Amino acid sequence: MSRETRATRSDFKVWRKFTTRWADNDAYGHVNNTVYYAWFDSAVNGWMVEQGMLDIMNGDPIALVVETRCAYFAPLEFPQDVDVGLAVGEIGRSSIRYRIGVFGDAETAAAQGEFVHVVVDRDSRRPVEIPADWRRKLEAIS
Amino acid sequence: MSRETRATRSDFKVWRKFTTRWADNDAYGHVNNTVYYAWFDSAVNGWMVEQGMLDIMNGDPIALVVETRCAYFAPLEFPQDVDVGLAVGEIGRSSIRYRIGVFGDAETAAAQGEFVHVVVDRDSRRPVEIPADWRRKLEAIS
Amino acid sequence: MSRETRATRSDFKVWRKFTTRWADNDAYGHVNNTVYYAWFDSAVNGWMVEQGMLDIMNGDPIALVVETRCAYFAPLEFPQDVDVGLAVGEIGRSSIRYRIGVFGDAETAAAQGEFVHVVVDRDSRRPVEIPADWRRKLEAIS
Amino acid sequence: MSRETRATRSDFKVWRKFTTRWADNDAYGHVNNTVYYAWFDSAVNGWMVEQGMLDIMNGDPIALVVETRCAYFAPLEFPQDVDVGLAVGEIGRSSIRYRIGVFGDAETAAAQGEFVHVVVDRDSRRPVEIPADWRRKLEAIS
Repeated sequence: MSRETRATRSDFKVWRKFTTRWADNDAYGHVNNTVYYAWFDSAVNGWMVEQGMLDIMNGDPIALVVETRCAYFAPLEFPQDVDVGLAVGEIGRSSIRYRIGVFGDAETAAAQGEFVHVVVDRDSRRPVEIPADWRRKLEAIS
Repeated sequence: MSRETRATRSDFKVWRKFTTRWADNDAYGHVNNTVYYAWFDSAVNGWMVEQGMLDIMNGDPIALVVETRCAYFAPLEFPQDVDVGLAVGEIGRSSIRYRIGVFGDAETAAAQGEFVHVVVDRDSRRPVEIPADWRRKLEAIS
Repeated sequence: MSRETRATRSDFKVWRKFTTRWADNDAYGHVNNTVYYAWFDSAVNGWMVEQGMLDIMNGDPIALVVETRCAYFAPLEFPQDVDVGLAVGEIGRSSIRYRIGVFGDAETAAAQGEFVHVVVDRDSRRPVEIPADWRRKLEAIS
Repeated sequence: MSRETRATRSDFKVWRKFTTRWADNDAYGHVNNTVYYAWFDSAVNGWMVEQGMLDIMNGDPIALVVETRCAYFAPLEFPQDVDVGLAVGEIGRSSIRYRIGVFGDAETAAAQGEFVHVVVDRDSRRPVEIPADWRRKLEAIS
């Protein structure tokens, strides 16, 4: 099975740093594959909160995850820190496809993937059109 | 962006049941997207241990995750239990692509995805050929 | 430092079964100490939901954790299942102290601890008196 | 039930910063109680790795958790960062009791607790005497 091209730091527009935790290392001594998705989620939502797009407990609309994927290239290990790079790959009427890269010390990604949000009404959880100010901020990191 | 066809229970060959945990529910009140990958990991490795293929702490070879993906269709919520269905989609020289479905009460999957293992030497962590007895067991659930 | 007496199955009144997950095993190959607290949380809240005391997303009052502790006696390991036993140790005006035991295959606890809930108003998050029907159900497992 | 005195930053000797993750927030919108224990574990083991005491995958002895406890005073919430303070409270022949405080923006602890390690032989997992150089480093933060 073929593997995709490994991303480099220059492929991403926005950065967030995360600390690892002891329990992230699994029985093989490396950060478990599920933890990368916790960083995906945290990078995207953290950026949205910081940009004033998302108010987790009270805001409307909110954004729900409908699809994610990740390819793993090199192991990471507690207690190292990681840099997570973010860029917007595609913007639909109500969906946003983010490209994400996870980096240890190297210039090439330790892992990379995609994370698709659908913007929904908080109560009905039905898709709504992406607000104009969200769209501007998303386009700025496309 | 188009969505793939939703799987049904008949698309999978082996089943494992998992309990949810309070902390699985995130701020939006549903099981967080990362938890599904914890079930993927647990279903595949649990089946391998049960089949006598994998001895987590002492066996050789072991299998490392190189790629995963998941599409989410319907929310799940603690305290419900989930059924995780497994089937082998593709077997390479040293890699195995599993298809996985996560089910709540319905016949259609709440989420579905893929999980790719590469079989490696425990010490060197370099790919090795899939052992013949592993291959037989993998083909039995293809 | 002295250790407390190890509990046995007969010390608990209500039981809930949990599955382990691959990522629960940490770098030393055993279920990480934090996972036991996830079971504590899940056993107590799961029982409360089942008893009709707690509606996580809409009910009022809710119960928040103010104190927990756990002593670990014997390791547990994915993919084994665990039995979590529950009993109420003390009921105050607005607080509930649960005693909890985690069991693998043995009659003696692999780990045991306490979990203290304070019952609060959903919106103000200020302590309120434990509702009479909650108190009856709590006393039934004291 | 009485509550212990809330610690302040001056009660701790060593500091480590941790980032929160989206999934740390549970259904009530605050960091779940189990996550604090993940920080305890990570603060202690991270400090030990940094001090050259612990080599997670190859070192001998290692340190296993035998007891933990935590009291929660004020909520924390993704995406805020947290400061975790550490001090050694008691050193036995083979056991170490750490005092730990978790801080958001305030001078008083959002949560505080204890974490007890027993130093063991890597293979037999039986307690051994704390090495002299570990003891010196532990006493330095007592």
